[in-house]
Amino acid sequence: MSGNSNNQAYKDLRVVVLAGGVGGAKLATGIAAVMPPENLTIVVNTGDDFVHMGLTICPDLDTVMYNLAGVNNTEMGWGRQGESWRVMESVKAYGGPDWFNLGDLDLGAHLTRAQMLNDGLSLTAVTQHLCQQLGIEPTVLPMSDHPAPTMIETETAVLPFQEWFVKERWQPVAKNIQLPENSKSTRDVALALQKADLVIIAPSNPFVSIDPILNCYPIQANVMDLPRAVVAVSPIVGGDAVKGPAAKLMREKGLDVTPVAIADYYGDLLDGFVFDVQDKGLKGSFSVETRCVDTMMVDEASRIRVANDVLAFAYDLTQ
Amino acid sequence: MSGNSNNQAYKDLRVVVLAGGVGGAKLATGIAAVMPPENLTIVVNTGDDFVHMGLTICPDLDTVMYNLAGVNNTEMGWGRQGESWRVMESVKAYGGPDWFNLGDLDLGAHLTRAQMLNDGLSLTAVTQHLCQQLGIEPTVLPMSDHPAPTMIETETAVLPFQEWFVKERWQPVAKNIQLPENSKSTRDVALALQKADLVIIAPSNPFVSIDPILNCYPIQANVMDLPRAVVAVSPIVGGDAVKGPAAKLMREKGLDVTPVAIADYYGDLLDGFVFDVQDKGLKGSFSVETRCVDTMMVDEASRIRVANDVLAFAYDLTQ
Repeated sequence: MSGNSNNQAYKDLRVVVLAGGVGGAKLATGIAAVMPPENLTIVVNTGDDFVHMGLTICPDLDTVMYNLAGVNNTEMGWGRQGESWRVMESVKAYGGPDWFNLGDLDLGAHLTRAQMLNDGLSLTAVTQHLCQQLGIEPTVLPMSDHPAPTMIETETAVLPFQEWFVKERWQPVAKNIQLPENSKSTRDVALALQKADLVIIAPSNPFVSIDPILNCYPIQANVMDLPRAVVAVSPIVGGDAVKGPAAKLMREKGLDVTPVAIADYYGDLLDGFVFDVQDKGLKGSFSVETRCVDTMMVDEASRIRVANDVLAFAYDLTQ
Repeated sequence: MSGNSNNQAYKDLRVVVLAGGVGGAKLATGIAAVMPPENLTIVVNTGDDFVHMGLTICPDLDTVMYNLAGVNNTEMGWGRQGESWRVMESVKAYGGPDWFNLGDLDLGAHLTRAQMLNDGLSLTAVTQHLCQQLGIEPTVLPMSDHPAPTMIETETAVLPFQEWFVKERWQPVAKNIQLPENSKSTRDVALALQKADLVIIAPSNPFVSIDPILNCYPIQANVMDLPRAVVAVSPIVGGDAVKGPAAKLMREKGLDVTPVAIADYYGDLLDGFVFDVQDKGLKGSFSVETRCVDTMMVDEASRIRVANDVLAFAYDLTQ
């Protein structure tokens, strides 16, 4: 399936990755390993962000940064390597909220971000600073500099995303996912998309990671119009989500839990779609160009292989 | 000097202590050891409070609470016993502000406070909660539920208190100490003062710990009018402050660095003044009733002894 595309000609193109949390972070890290940093921008969902104990927490931004910096905790699957929990133990002893774990090392980022935001810096500028401190070379951009919270409407309440996702362990049925009506993106994101040759939509949750990004004006229109190729990678493999609530949300929406349904959901936005070898038999029903590869990213080598395959496919679509 | 006052008849009186940081915390802890908790209220300076890295930090409230709970760090002289610094190390690695040390255990209080304040609770209610969690029985009240920041005017800038005190190590000459014009106290403080038989002004800094409390309307008027006796304890011993910048501020104000000058500074507010045996020769020049005792509080026994002496003296003044 890989054609003649392993020549890495894509390196000269300018690439924007749209990413949520863990799946997005893995693909972004693979792409960062094969792309010159000056040609790579990663636009990250901030619809999960929330203010907790006085601090603005940006779970997806932090996951992407920790993965790009190689300081992510591979055992837990989230947070920092070598993390400790002294502060959370103290918060619990004070009867404070303990449903969202904040590690000691992780808190260093949240506190630094809080100070910089209070000083009047934008989330974009704060993210640039944190990336510099972590030695991250590609550009990481929040989808917006302003709160654009994703809300989950359940049978009994409308919950901020993290309350549904972490506190309720994404178990309440999501009747509706509410995205804010007037959220706006940033000048930096707009410039990156104007220059982009390729947009890669990471194997993140389409409904709660990618839709919030596309919902920030004018990202959806820019992605539709500007790049020479837009390619998404399926977060659904073998009838389930690789991680997280994507499959459950699809069932609750009445969708089949298949890569085809994901590709159809993105619709005209896509020029190409990458799905996993486990779903090879499904290929015929796609209404978009596809490439079928092993998309499992379990280590650095597989992240790089998937990145290479996805970029090579996208490059081929531009020819 | 102690007369017949060691009978602890003061236990039936209602006592309010006005306190700043370390000196106030020590005397408050001694008084808490000899008074029934239902008869003791400690009103604490919050003019030092500031928002740092998104968190409302209340240094004097925390010092008083940690001392009352017996979890204060006796080696450092501030903060918590058994403290660790994982978060500060991470903040430094992120290039965040590192001039104000926040320990991991300490941060548990700041984060819990931040959440409760963001939830709409008053600082009084938050302090009550933290005291309950720490097992503190006397009532600890902030002087105000609203920010009332003490500002230090130096030759070159007007600095928030902690920037002068910690960041600049209180070295810049304080040309003027600016207290807010319209700061108001709370209903809880007013009720405590209305019921108070004795008010004890701890050996805290008169200018930056006690004045900010008195400056919160209507505390000064209430202290002047309501209690049967008001007694201050000298923070100046042997020509210097026991701790902190009191002596330096006195010199910069053109005052003699003596207990007499402290008593004169408080003036008509006082019914009695306690000074240290090291300054015994100075007794004649006071224009207020005095008692001369060993005021050094180096351990639990001496804190209790000083508390007993001060309360007994105040009791005598009511007879």
